[in-house]
Amino acid sequence: MASEKQLIARTGGKLPSRTSAGLRVGIGDDAAVVRPKEGVEWVLTTDAFLENVHFLSRVHPPEAVGYKALARATSDLAAMGARPLYFLLSLALPTGCTGKWYDGFLEGMARAARTFGLTLAGGDTTRSTLAAVNLTIIGEIDRGQAVLRSGARPGNLICVSGTLGEAELGLQLLQRRGPKKWKKELLRKHLYPEPRLHLGQWLAKGRATAMIDTSDGLSTDLRHLCESSGVGAKLWAAKIPKVALPSEAQKIGLDPLRLALDGGDDYELLFTLPKRMQRHLPSAVRGVPITVIGEITREKRILLVDEAGRTRTLLARGWEPFRE
Amino acid sequence: MASEKQLIARTGGKLPSRTSAGLRVGIGDDAAVVRPKEGVEWVLTTDAFLENVHFLSRVHPPEAVGYKALARATSDLAAMGARPLYFLLSLALPTGCTGKWYDGFLEGMARAARTFGLTLAGGDTTRSTLAAVNLTIIGEIDRGQAVLRSGARPGNLICVSGTLGEAELGLQLLQRRGPKKWKKELLRKHLYPEPRLHLGQWLAKGRATAMIDTSDGLSTDLRHLCESSGVGAKLWAAKIPKVALPSEAQKIGLDPLRLALDGGDDYELLFTLPKRMQRHLPSAVRGVPITVIGEITREKRILLVDEAGRTRTLLARGWEPFRE
Repeated sequence: MASEKQLIARTGGKLPSRTSAGLRVGIGDDAAVVRPKEGVEWVLTTDAFLENVHFLSRVHPPEAVGYKALARATSDLAAMGARPLYFLLSLALPTGCTGKWYDGFLEGMARAARTFGLTLAGGDTTRSTLAAVNLTIIGEIDRGQAVLRSGARPGNLICVSGTLGEAELGLQLLQRRGPKKWKKELLRKHLYPEPRLHLGQWLAKGRATAMIDTSDGLSTDLRHLCESSGVGAKLWAAKIPKVALPSEAQKIGLDPLRLALDGGDDYELLFTLPKRMQRHLPSAVRGVPITVIGEITREKRILLVDEAGRTRTLLARGWEPFRE
Repeated sequence: MASEKQLIARTGGKLPSRTSAGLRVGIGDDAAVVRPKEGVEWVLTTDAFLENVHFLSRVHPPEAVGYKALARATSDLAAMGARPLYFLLSLALPTGCTGKWYDGFLEGMARAARTFGLTLAGGDTTRSTLAAVNLTIIGEIDRGQAVLRSGARPGNLICVSGTLGEAELGLQLLQRRGPKKWKKELLRKHLYPEPRLHLGQWLAKGRATAMIDTSDGLSTDLRHLCESSGVGAKLWAAKIPKVALPSEAQKIGLDPLRLALDGGDDYELLFTLPKRMQRHLPSAVRGVPITVIGEITREKRILLVDEAGRTRTLLARGWEPFRE
């Protein structure tokens, strides 16, 4: 069985962890020491990824667990418009997960770290009965450029990146028959979500007035954004970029609009723009589609106009950890 | 039952969480935004505090769980000589812990945060079957002043703050008969450890050559320090400031030297100083005693000279999470 020291050595060997001009002291000391550049602000976020809450050992491959733990935490940086720099990995593992499982986990996490430009700066390792991973991500942004949830104003356009409901579709399929039975493409977004870092940075250049990532689901995340901004919203169901359902999913009664409204874990960006930008808005930024799906209203209600033109209140039915 | 939103509101209401010139965006957005001062470096650490690993619900009062979770994470900053600024709280709670238990937890954590000068900058909340708390602490230090584990040189004095073995004594007593049976004073160090922040900052003013906190126990933490520095050490058993045993503890066969060498969780500072400082070394800094307990050697062995003058190899018998 591996000792803590051996585990730390394997972790540091596998994940990008070299010290640099910015990272003065990395893993192996009591704490990391980093040197901020002039003129920047730091963006910090922390995120738990827990066995039996966020993933199931018998369903999710270890590569996906390692990748997704880092991806979802990094998505919070994308939603501020920040550039990722360093991360801290706090790891509690059952003894049975310290061998081959952990190699797979590290492989997935290393791929995510390289893709997002993150360097491991420190962490914590202990033993537990269920695997518990906590990621802290440190990024930077030019002073005053962070896009908050609170900046949406009446008349602003509501936009979303990518396609919504794909991750929830993947989860539903996985829960039914395990990972081997489905085409990889259908499970990709659930297992390997892509934080929209480049788009977030593009929007933070004075473009977006407010932004959040769709981690809980559109209906819930739009409510978070509206409550923070003190506004309401009107969405057009027909405009929402909804997941395309394969015939197997149609058979089990899944509804694309429901998946798109309430499915969590997509890690797309939901953001608002001044109306005058509509004319100049590109349809995609570096290959990531952007769609206008509604507008911000003064009245603090969140409404959905369905495809038949009827208007109803949109309830927040996305992820709520303490719902029974 | 509390929703995630209600839990976050209670957390922000109870813990120091006001934004400031340094903390531009605090809790309630996707991530925190902080503005570093000029001329400083940032010190970052992360630490898990898990039910059934680091604490037991039926033994440890919720105030102590909240206090200690923050205290032990902050101790890593003390061991670098840094000044604490902000913290991120990642919280996974069973439904049964979201009521009164959580109020007690927050009370203990709020007391720790005020004592250490920490402001809550962000976090994450989810549900789980066992309580899992992860703290990330952000501090600052003047450029180049952080005291690393790797700076110890042959001939340096080895020093320790406070008294060793007190926390382990408290744990041993608690495990035998629960918290109500013992004098508070005997359990204090186990339940409410005090990170040596002021001493750490004093030592970081060009005084200490290397430093670590005694979280795993002297025998193990001294090994960490020596391995990082590429040196060995000789300790004098007679000099080690050992816990005083009450008669009840003597009866159950506890040995003060064993407790002091291998007991973890004291969160004292173990540090090295150039020999020439011995003459000017105060016996205490702001009430925290300092004791010279040995010296760094060129030969990479760790030796203990016992009270009869016999020399033997000191094995690392402190905390190792993956030991059976």
